Amino acid sequence: MSAAIEIEERVRYSETDQMGVAHNGSYFEWFEIGRTEFCRQNGLSYKDIEALGYYLVVVEAFCKYRKPLRYDDIFLVRVSLREISAKKLVFDYELLTKEERKIVASGYTVHIVTNGRAEVSALPEQLREKIAGE
Amino acid sequence: MSAAIEIEERVRYSETDQMGVAHNGSYFEWFEIGRTEFCRQNGLSYKDIEALGYYLVVVEAFCKYRKPLRYDDIFLVRVSLREISAKKLVFDYELLTKEERKIVASGYTVHIVTNGRAEVSALPEQLREKIAGE
Amino acid sequence: MSAAIEIEERVRYSETDQMGVAHNGSYFEWFEIGRTEFCRQNGLSYKDIEALGYYLVVVEAFCKYRKPLRYDDIFLVRVSLREISAKKLVFDYELLTKEERKIVASGYTVHIVTNGRAEVSALPEQLREKIAGE
Amino acid sequence: MSAAIEIEERVRYSETDQMGVAHNGSYFEWFEIGRTEFCRQNGLSYKDIEALGYYLVVVEAFCKYRKPLRYDDIFLVRVSLREISAKKLVFDYELLTKEERKIVASGYTVHIVTNGRAEVSALPEQLREKIAGE
Repeated sequence: MSAAIEIEERVRYSETDQMGVAHNGSYFEWFEIGRTEFCRQNGLSYKDIEALGYYLVVVEAFCKYRKPLRYDDIFLVRVSLREISAKKLVFDYELLTKEERKIVASGYTVHIVTNGRAEVSALPEQLREKIAGE
Repeated sequence: MSAAIEIEERVRYSETDQMGVAHNGSYFEWFEIGRTEFCRQNGLSYKDIEALGYYLVVVEAFCKYRKPLRYDDIFLVRVSLREISAKKLVFDYELLTKEERKIVASGYTVHIVTNGRAEVSALPEQLREKIAGE
Repeated sequence: MSAAIEIEERVRYSETDQMGVAHNGSYFEWFEIGRTEFCRQNGLSYKDIEALGYYLVVVEAFCKYRKPLRYDDIFLVRVSLREISAKKLVFDYELLTKEERKIVASGYTVHIVTNGRAEVSALPEQLREKIAGE
Repeated sequence: MSAAIEIEERVRYSETDQMGVAHNGSYFEWFEIGRTEFCRQNGLSYKDIEALGYYLVVVEAFCKYRKPLRYDDIFLVRVSLREISAKKLVFDYELLTKEERKIVASGYTVHIVTNGRAEVSALPEQLREKIAGE
């Protein structure tokens, strides 16, 4: 299985809300950025997957928020692939503080594969192996 | 327990992504709008809850996406309160098509109560009873 | 020329930032919702314009912020069409408080017309007349 | 006057819309990220400005969109300070393609200075000089 990847992000001002912390919806955008990088670092950008006519549609998304993130905080998005088959993928995420690597949030997304006409489709073995790092 | 409430929303252009459907992150904003209306319709606006010094901080959020929503689609956000205690609340959500009332997505959010200094706090019984519709 | 239209909106929690007011980027989403309604109320939904193969691409956007809007505030989005030709449209916007109709923000967007291949195109006279209310 | 600064950004999937390009509202978030970095690189983070009790409230925002940006595109945000006085600041922005440095968008934001009670205030000379790079 592909190794986990990590990227560094910073909380944008527009991502805060009036509680003075990052809004709960922002985390799913960060998961997505991490997912994009996971694919790229395994040699297959998500952009190319779509160009080939395959879409990894989100069918479930979950986030557990442990510690707040504030404006301008730097954090790490750690992404790993839990499961991959021709028709389903599951990604796991952890958000960590940069210095002490404390977990501030964790979650997962479940994806099905569709084609350009939004029909359930099977990811070709070659693409699957690339994402899976085989 | 308070009855479920329903509001009508419409998919904004800015809420779509290049797949041509509403982006997965938008659903959590819609859950939040529904939650705001749930509180209001039970006689206690969330704005007033914060003005009294209590914050319902999201600690878990989950969404299951069943059918895509597209730009300009009208849909219903149905919100009910699953659980409420002095320190924890759980809300359930269903997104339905307007005409046929088909479920397009469902989910929940778990909240803890904090005060203005972000410390875990207890929601006064009077406020709890209002939200719970007792 | 088509008469101005007005819609009512409410500030979402996710649209606030840590200043405790609506974030400056949210206003452009509200302009867009107003533009969608302007087209619909003139008998031609923007969704249909795109279905016919025409896109009103934003090439300029401006907003002047006069008074802050806060979470849960109700406000009006007033939209009028300043200019329309085969290749260019200009919309004007005003955001007003609901009760006293005080202007909280104003702005405009300039659009060019493109086709599905992102080439500059001319909006057919029939569509133009509908939007213009002629 | 402080020199212009540049940062590199990448278009997020959530920032695209169904036209298949970055949504017009995203550009104002990118301007804001650039502004944050401008302040930091001049030795005074915007976070610290707020911690000292001063807020640079956006009162005008403008963007001219020249070429579309697509998902996963890398681009540069170039920020310069056009004007600064005790009560008003104007920032200029250019978005450029990374390789050929072609301008894809440009714009500006005008800011007034307020204090924690949202009253118009004067930025102390020491802070002003830092931002201005004097």
